[in-house]
Amino acid sequence: MNRLQRALDALVERVDTPAPIVLVDVMQANIDRMQGFADQHNLEVRPHVKTHKCVEIARRQVEAGAVGITAGNVGEAEVFAAAGFDDIFLAYPIWPAGTKGARIRRLAQSTRLRVGVDNVAAIEALADAMGDEPDRLKVVIEVDCGARRSGAPPELAGDLALAAHKRGLAPVGVFTYPGHGSSGPDARERAAQDQEDALTTAVRSLAGVGVTARVVSAGSTPTIEFSTSGVITEIRPGEYVFCDLNNTRLGACTDDQIALFVAATVVSDWVPDQVILDVGTKALGREGSPERGYGGVAGTKAVLAKLNEYHGFLPLPAGEFRPGVGTLVPVVPNHVCPVVLGFEELIVTDSTGTSLQRWPVDARGFLN
Amino acid sequence: MNRLQRALDALVERVDTPAPIVLVDVMQANIDRMQGFADQHNLEVRPHVKTHKCVEIARRQVEAGAVGITAGNVGEAEVFAAAGFDDIFLAYPIWPAGTKGARIRRLAQSTRLRVGVDNVAAIEALADAMGDEPDRLKVVIEVDCGARRSGAPPELAGDLALAAHKRGLAPVGVFTYPGHGSSGPDARERAAQDQEDALTTAVRSLAGVGVTARVVSAGSTPTIEFSTSGVITEIRPGEYVFCDLNNTRLGACTDDQIALFVAATVVSDWVPDQVILDVGTKALGREGSPERGYGGVAGTKAVLAKLNEYHGFLPLPAGEFRPGVGTLVPVVPNHVCPVVLGFEELIVTDSTGTSLQRWPVDARGFLN
Repeated sequence: MNRLQRALDALVERVDTPAPIVLVDVMQANIDRMQGFADQHNLEVRPHVKTHKCVEIARRQVEAGAVGITAGNVGEAEVFAAAGFDDIFLAYPIWPAGTKGARIRRLAQSTRLRVGVDNVAAIEALADAMGDEPDRLKVVIEVDCGARRSGAPPELAGDLALAAHKRGLAPVGVFTYPGHGSSGPDARERAAQDQEDALTTAVRSLAGVGVTARVVSAGSTPTIEFSTSGVITEIRPGEYVFCDLNNTRLGACTDDQIALFVAATVVSDWVPDQVILDVGTKALGREGSPERGYGGVAGTKAVLAKLNEYHGFLPLPAGEFRPGVGTLVPVVPNHVCPVVLGFEELIVTDSTGTSLQRWPVDARGFLN
Repeated sequence: MNRLQRALDALVERVDTPAPIVLVDVMQANIDRMQGFADQHNLEVRPHVKTHKCVEIARRQVEAGAVGITAGNVGEAEVFAAAGFDDIFLAYPIWPAGTKGARIRRLAQSTRLRVGVDNVAAIEALADAMGDEPDRLKVVIEVDCGARRSGAPPELAGDLALAAHKRGLAPVGVFTYPGHGSSGPDARERAAQDQEDALTTAVRSLAGVGVTARVVSAGSTPTIEFSTSGVITEIRPGEYVFCDLNNTRLGACTDDQIALFVAATVVSDWVPDQVILDVGTKALGREGSPERGYGGVAGTKAVLAKLNEYHGFLPLPAGEFRPGVGTLVPVVPNHVCPVVLGFEELIVTDSTGTSLQRWPVDARGFLN
């Protein structure tokens, strides 16, 4: 990953740290590789925008062949709809209280909107919110495949589809999230198998009430490699666009595919064999553990041992990496998705560091 | 903390979740109490804005008697300077690379700006950045008091003050941060004592080179109660304005002083004795541990056991708290500071829930 350090060196004096740096050539290769894999296996790609929250990146994903986007909340969906995205899956068991019912109705009027549901009460509330045009809203039944998060038992998916149908909503299929595939390298294939089993059961359950599952939608960057058996119609990866240390540890990406790092500066070096970087939880999130650390310096064995809000504690491993005060270093996040929370824009360059653009994080701050 | 649930119940249908809710009466009492304590002990209050990043709240802190504000990076300082705050302490060992040197010079021209320094290289770089008007920039020497983060050894503070003076900068005092006072209830008083010892040594070190420490600046919400012995001239608390579960556990605030919670909705309840809330790491940060949990529901024993980005896993303790899908619940963060990262605005009400204002998180997204 010295490539990251080289790109950063070329940006010296042009970026103020901390700053998220995107290598656009690496990112584009990630997008194209995922699309190629999906095409080969007859899967549609519907990337999750939570990872980047950036219209320009979603545009590139769609240009490469994505059928639409996945959003995690109504605000994200609105930002991307306003930017012209007209095929949006809100893959979340939305509860349409407050102004959300009216917002969902407006979105369903202007885009092809699908929302997730996993219970009858939400179906009723969504139908109420849609007034005299419930059929404008496509719903996808969420089932659980072992993550024990949201999602109905797969064998009950048909009951929910029927409840939606009875209220005039348009049930179009099923989805799940194999979150338990991120617990370790061994967990990926097993979680993908659980996912396939759950979706197969759910599709049969829909068929049992006379509903065809046109959409059979699966996560996620760590499990996609094992999600090719045929029942799945679309995948919703997010992290693949940038990759991160969690995914390299899982074997779901390689060092060469890391397309985002946070540029940091050494600001203090009084404690022996430790330096302080100007990246803390507000730039990286507190993603990690004392054992695994909270992010690493590319091209070195150095790992952040502790974070405060604006300070990263970096013990220096024995060896030649002894950065002095004022040195710029590239920090690779454990988990890339929280990085876009804290920044107005992404600094976009390439592996040579010669170009420099700034792309806004359009959906930052939209969490409900 | 059923007060929080009552305020939330009064807001139903007026807020979309997740959303940060501020009880302005409780917050104002926190501001007034801290100011009263400081007045009683001849301390100046210079609140850290990282906790709220909100101009309206900083205005109330100054109206109550704060002498100025503390910022954690140049961007925060710029936002508050633009809003009219003219006495700003950038309590961070700034390295003025990129455009930061020019930005600091501009700030020093328009406000009474102090910045932290803990090494000679940064002093040289700051003096270079100030061009022909180095004396416009006040510097405060950071010393370590046991947190082993940034800060020079206290006995070397004089050397740094002298280096600053030689380059024409204006050394005005010393500061430190007793971060090790947050490790447990017993640590607070000890860390406060360490802080006092370090600051006393640093003041003497400055006197040894003929520099008077007009500013002797101390952290932080957990240690302030024990920071009254006389050497300290100002305190820089941040979290006291809202309080949080970490501070209640430390004994640094009480349940009644919690002035911010995140309104959440139960969105799924398929797993027995567990519900899923629509708050995850993007609303709360991953602040906590599997043992301590990641935030709690006010007025109950329920604690979030796990977070994904948009999902909070809430095991339900035995008893009467069985919220169904669609129920609004008030989630109190472990650590309140990351909450402002993800939101455009704070929803401001009072303990009765009758008023409702929206205050922008002005410095959100400004991290460098």
